[in-house]
Order: sequence, then structure tokens, then C-alpha cells
Amino acid sequence: MAAFVLCGVTVASRSAARLLLPVRRTDTLTLSRTWRSARLEPATGRRFVSHLGTRGAAGALVAAAAVCAAAIGHFYTAEMAAKVEEKLKRRKKKEDGEEEEEEEDVMKRCARFMSRPVTDVEVLRRNPRDTSTRMELLIMETQAEFCRALEHVDGGTFRVDRWQREEGGGGISCVLQDGKVFEKAGVNVSVVFGHLTEEAAKQMRSRGKVLKGKDGKLPFRAMGVSSVIHPKNPHIPTVHFNYRYFEIEEADGSKQWWFGGGTDLTPVYVDEADALHFHGTLKEACDKHDPQYYSRFKEWCDRYFYIRHRGETRGIGGIFFDDLDAPSREEAFSFVRSCARTVVPCYLPIVRKHLSDTFTAREKEWQQVRRGRYVEFNLVYDRGVKFGLATPGSRIESILMSLPLTARWEYMHEPPKGSREAEMLEVLRKPKDWV
Amino acid sequence: MAAFVLCGVTVASRSAARLLLPVRRTDTLTLSRTWRSARLEPATGRRFVSHLGTRGAAGALVAAAAVCAAAIGHFYTAEMAAKVEEKLKRRKKKEDGEEEEEEEDVMKRCARFMSRPVTDVEVLRRNPRDTSTRMELLIMETQAEFCRALEHVDGGTFRVDRWQREEGGGGISCVLQDGKVFEKAGVNVSVVFGHLTEEAAKQMRSRGKVLKGKDGKLPFRAMGVSSVIHPKNPHIPTVHFNYRYFEIEEADGSKQWWFGGGTDLTPVYVDEADALHFHGTLKEACDKHDPQYYSRFKEWCDRYFYIRHRGETRGIGGIFFDDLDAPSREEAFSFVRSCARTVVPCYLPIVRKHLSDTFTAREKEWQQVRRGRYVEFNLVYDRGVKFGLATPGSRIESILMSLPLTARWEYMHEPPKGSREAEMLEVLRKPKDWV
Repeated sequence: MAAFVLCGVTVASRSAARLLLPVRRTDTLTLSRTWRSARLEPATGRRFVSHLGTRGAAGALVAAAAVCAAAIGHFYTAEMAAKVEEKLKRRKKKEDGEEEEEEEDVMKRCARFMSRPVTDVEVLRRNPRDTSTRMELLIMETQAEFCRALEHVDGGTFRVDRWQREEGGGGISCVLQDGKVFEKAGVNVSVVFGHLTEEAAKQMRSRGKVLKGKDGKLPFRAMGVSSVIHPKNPHIPTVHFNYRYFEIEEADGSKQWWFGGGTDLTPVYVDEADALHFHGTLKEACDKHDPQYYSRFKEWCDRYFYIRHRGETRGIGGIFFDDLDAPSREEAFSFVRSCARTVVPCYLPIVRKHLSDTFTAREKEWQQVRRGRYVEFNLVYDRGVKFGLATPGSRIESILMSLPLTARWEYMHEPPKGSREAEMLEVLRKPKDWV
Repeated sequence: MAAFVLCGVTVASRSAARLLLPVRRTDTLTLSRTWRSARLEPATGRRFVSHLGTRGAAGALVAAAAVCAAAIGHFYTAEMAAKVEEKLKRRKKKEDGEEEEEEEDVMKRCARFMSRPVTDVEVLRRNPRDTSTRMELLIMETQAEFCRALEHVDGGTFRVDRWQREEGGGGISCVLQDGKVFEKAGVNVSVVFGHLTEEAAKQMRSRGKVLKGKDGKLPFRAMGVSSVIHPKNPHIPTVHFNYRYFEIEEADGSKQWWFGGGTDLTPVYVDEADALHFHGTLKEACDKHDPQYYSRFKEWCDRYFYIRHRGETRGIGGIFFDDLDAPSREEAFSFVRSCARTVVPCYLPIVRKHLSDTFTAREKEWQQVRRGRYVEFNLVYDRGVKFGLATPGSRIESILMSLPLTARWEYMHEPPKGSREAEMLEVLRKPKDWV
């Protein structure tokens, strides 16, 4: 067996490499000082490399992945490795030329979606530079990319439900339930519009800014993509992301707009390499736009996904932001686009890495207990869920598709000291800086 | 096999009889007009008699139960039947002479509890006629009676946790988890005191009455017993009850006091005989105190245990009341005592009736889906849970012990038309009058 020197061409390729490559020998590894991360997996005895400081030739990565995959006899074939390479190349191209891609014919882009968009395609074609058009296409694209990537790993197919909202707009809910890999995977797009009361408009902004409506009513338009993925294997973490855009028109005709969003990870066991990969990928996406974004939004995430009555965060965090209306709409949109496009490279390599991990009944039970905590957060604290449940005409099944297929509540559950379960709890009780 | 004519000596004995006795022939049954209720159990082919209009000799009941139990070869032995008879006699005696029993030495009463009371026994002995003493002894007694009855059926033992509240008071939590019959059974007593803000005091009363405190603070004392029992077998319903008493002292020294409580049933399949027994038993307890109580508190229960975002009640209801401060403290206490003492006769006969029911994987899965709804109600709407989670220093494990051990959320779950699951949903969507 061989150790591998990883390339550093793009965020995505490095990230994938960190996680795809099981290393059988450890003696030739050179770790960077800041990202120390080669660790021995207790469950499998395999060692994973992550965030290597040295950089090599890009091609070596894929070839090495193929060799190694064949050796361990699991999901990685040469063919798949080639697909990964192709995907990474496309991703690089996309990052280099995002603007051009947006210029692509709307019809062509729509053809790749899980369903036609909520807004009539003709309307989108006529207004290609409107932020609402660009955002709707981005969230549809994010949904499709993520669903396809998950289907590819799982072998199952997403059920696609289009729904309409009486008061205006609608959505597309994609759910894959009881698959081979995923217990429940939901990816939801919604584009809604109508009128809000001043009170509701205030609640929609976390800063609670007062907006003046005509006769107390404010025309609004809101759209977003949101997703929660609960895998079966307790070594594959749950992921959640949500990217959204709001427009509200005040009485004087001026338009308020803002973006919100975030991506966060909820493992049930600490896997430092996974955490480094996940946070590292998000950090790099943030850093391209503002060097302060990552640390600000990482802290916000830890604060937001906090189960107060348990004194625990829901998971190991990621990024979370709201009310983003600076420095300009163009730049804010560009940042959100970067975030949305990191979802697949943030998560899929982690899924693939753990696909063949074995697990015990105890590990499965601990996952179920943590699922219970996930439910507690979502039903007690999550602002989106609370807003949705309280709003007449909401599509409840789309709001609650974030709940796991199964969960467990044990009275006075306390993992033994020194156990891997206790190690996880420690991290949840005192969030770490991963990168 | 024989049909049985049931006695009508007390509520409890009739109730037990309705449910304990499987009847193999149906031709000799005479049903009352109002409580028509002999029904064929589709799962077992057995027929259960309930609410018979004819009345016979008390002794026949127990003897018949013993014979029949031997015939079906399950939990009912002659010895158990004798125990039931003994219990029913004690219950009759108790109802006839509640006052005398209360005069019994406090120490003697305490000896039967799951733990010593929260308040020092010496303090209770010195103030035997105080409502707070009488209520504390009542809730401790209710906890003990219920726990013993469940232990007897399950074969397991309750774990007993005494806990203290830093701000004043404490509680006793009894939990039986993963037993033979019960997936999770929790029976909690708490007696707490301290000072409330005017806002918190207002929230504690459902009528939201404003109370004036000295410097905005109000000394209060609150106590209650609450319980949720989640059985394993989907044919045994979940039960919940809670009986509580509050005292608040206003700035002028005047004391506000009130009682609250209720008992409600959450089956996952409609069993009319069970529903009739449960509601009938509650109605008789209510009727002894005020002929309007049952219908008023039954409606309140349907209104309160309503999962708004699903358009469903949590279960088939029972009774629920709050802010009860009339006609006098003595009479209100006496009513609450009657309610608390119907818990065992309301529920245990239903448990016993279904102990040996077989069930399919589909039935178990439907139970798990309904458990999910139970979690939704408890975390999103239940006032007690919300108040508890938002109150610093609460004992979270006691508040959340009401959550089931396991639950399930399926996307777009909809039972087939005409199925027993659909029949249940219909009742939850449109509450019925059972008696």
C-alpha cells in the first residue's frame, strides 16, 4: 500500500482527496502545522489523510483513488474515479466562469432541474438579470445537483412533488426515503409571494427591523432551497443547508432585500478529518468574498444551532448568516452562489468515505438518541419551522421533511466517561474551532 | 364458553368488567341504548363487552373473569382476579370514606409512596388540613398507586429519582423504560416554590389574569403529578394525566389558588369499547361533582390537545381543565382527588385487555408514526413543556420523559382509504362524543 501526496488545484479537488483516500502507511505523511489531521479511525483501523500541506500533480489524485478503491473492494471503481475527475474539472471551470454559465440559455439550464421552476420559464427568460430570476435558477440548480449526487451514491431515486401555495407561489419538494444509504433525504425549493403584515415582516428579519407597509401590508417575495439529509450509517453525518432571498416593498415603493443561509454538519461521532474538510471547504468559499465572513458566520452558526435546554449545539456547525444586504446585491448574491455551490463538495466526500464503515447496535442507538436531539432543535427552536408551522397555508410535509425517519429518547441517557459518545458530547457542549 | 352479565356496584368495577371479559358468544348480550358497545375485534376475533345496561351480582364479575381468563390462557389467574376484587373493594371503601382516609397518620401514608415526599414529613404532619399538604399527599399517593399498578402488569421496576430545585422544592421522577409491556412509562411529582415575575405568573394562568406582586415579584407554590405511558404493543393506547395545584401570594397578602389537570388517551387504532370505558369512567367521576364538568372539560381537552399544523387531535381526548378555583377550595380539591383516583381504573383495564393482542409490523409502524405526532404536540404546543424548557433550572429529563422511546416521521404518510389507520385519522380529525 502507498501513501499519497495530494494535489491542491481547487478547493473541491483537495477536499475530495482528503477524504477519498484511505492510506495504509503513515510514515511518509507530512502534515501542515495548522491543519494537523491524519487520524486513525478506531472503527476500521484505516487512516485518512486530510488537509495535507504538500501539493502535487492533480492527476495523481484520481489515479491513486482508483487504485486504492480497487484494493479495498468497495464503491470506488476506475470508472467512478474518472467521473469524479470530470466533475472536479467542471467545478473548476464553473468557478472560473460563473458569470458565463449564468448567461447560458434559461431553457437549457431548466432542462437539468428536478422539475420546471416555480416561476413561469418565460418570465424568467424575459428578466435574466433580476436577482429573483438568478436566485430562483440558482436554488433550482442547487437542488438538482445535490439530488443527483445523492442518487448516485444511494442508487435510489428522489420522489419529486410540485406544490402550489394558494396565497401565491409554490415549491418543489424532493424526498428520498429509506434508501440504501439515506434514511431520509429531503431537498426543498420554494418560491412564494404575497403580502405580509408589518409584524410578520419584522419577524422575518432576525434584526427585527421595522418596515412600513401601505395600510399595514407589505408585498413580499421569498425563495430558498433547504435540505436535511439523514443517512442510515451512524458514521455518515447528517447535513443541513438552506439558502434564501427576500424582497419586501415598503409603502414608499422602496425595496428591501436580503439573503440568508448556511450549511452545517451533525455527526454523531467526532471525526476530525471530516470536520476539517467540511469547515475548510466552507472557509475557502467564504474567504473568496470577505476574510471575516467565515469566523463571523461560523460563530453565528454555533449560536443559532444551540439546544438551550440541553446546553448542547445540534452538531459541529458550519456557517449561518441572515439579513445579508451588503456590500451590494451583486456581491451578496455572488457569495450566496459560492456557498450553494460548496454543498456537494462539502458533504459528498464525507458520505463516500464512510459508505462501507461497519457499525454496532450501540452506535446505531447513539445515532437515534442524537436524532432525538435533532427533532428537539427543529421543533422547539428552528425559526423557519416555527414560522412555517404558524403560517396558515404552509405545506407542512415540506417543512417537517427535515425530521428524521426514526428517533429515540432515553431517560437520563449519559454515555460512559471516555467513550466516543462522551467525546462527541464534549464537542457539542463546547464548540471547537476546526480550521 | 359463556356470556357474562356484569355487575354495576361501582364505576371502577363496571369499568374493569367491561374490559376484562372476553365473551365468546354474543347472543345473550343485552346492550343499553346509550352505551352500545359490544364490538368484534378484527385482530383477534374476540368480542369485548362494555357498558352493559343490565346489572347483576358483584361477585359474579370476578368469578367469571377468573374462569374466562383461564380459558384464554393468559394473564388472568384466579389469584389475580381475587386481587382485582380486593382492589375494587378498597376503591369502593375509599370513595365512601375519603375523608377518613385522609385522617390516617401521615407517616403511614408516606410509607406507601415511591419515595418520601418533597416537603419534610414533619411539616406535613403539623399542617394536615392545609390544601398544599393534602395535595402533596394526594399526588404522591397517585404516583405510587399508578406505578405499582403498572409494575404489576409489566413485571419491571420503576427507577426512582429524587431531585432538588435550586430555587426551592424538588420532585420525584419514576421511570420504567424498555419493560415487557411498556416502552417508556414516566410518572413525575414536583413540588416547587419561590418567586415569580408578574409576567411569568400571568403566563401560568390560562386566563392570563394579572396578579400584583410586591416589587413585581410574587411568592408562589406549585405542585403536581404528571405521567405519560407509552406501551410497546400498538393495541395498548398511550395515556397521559396531570393534576396540579398553584398558590400565589399578591402584594396585599391575599392568596390566589387554583387547580388544573386532566387525563387523556392516545390510541393508534379506534377501539370503541376502550373509548367508552375511558370516557365513561371520567364522566362518572365528574358527574359526582358537577353535571356540567364532563362535557365542558371533554371539549376543553379536544381543544387543548390539538395539533394545529396537522389538523388533528393528539388522541381521543378525555378531560382537561385549568384555573379551577370554584365553587370552593374544598370542593375543587375533592373533584381533583376524584379525578386523580380514576387514573388506575381508567387505564389499567384497557392495558390488561390488550396485553396478549398480537400485532403486525404495519401496526407497529403506524404506532411509530403516531408517536411522531405525539412528539410534535409535546414540543410545539404543550404549555407545560414550553414553560419548563424556557425556565432556567428546570429538570429537563423530567419534562421530556413524556417523549416516547422511539418515533418515526414518514414523508407524506397517508393510510389507504378504508383502512383501520384511516379510521383512526378520521376520529382525530373530527373528535367524537363517546358517552
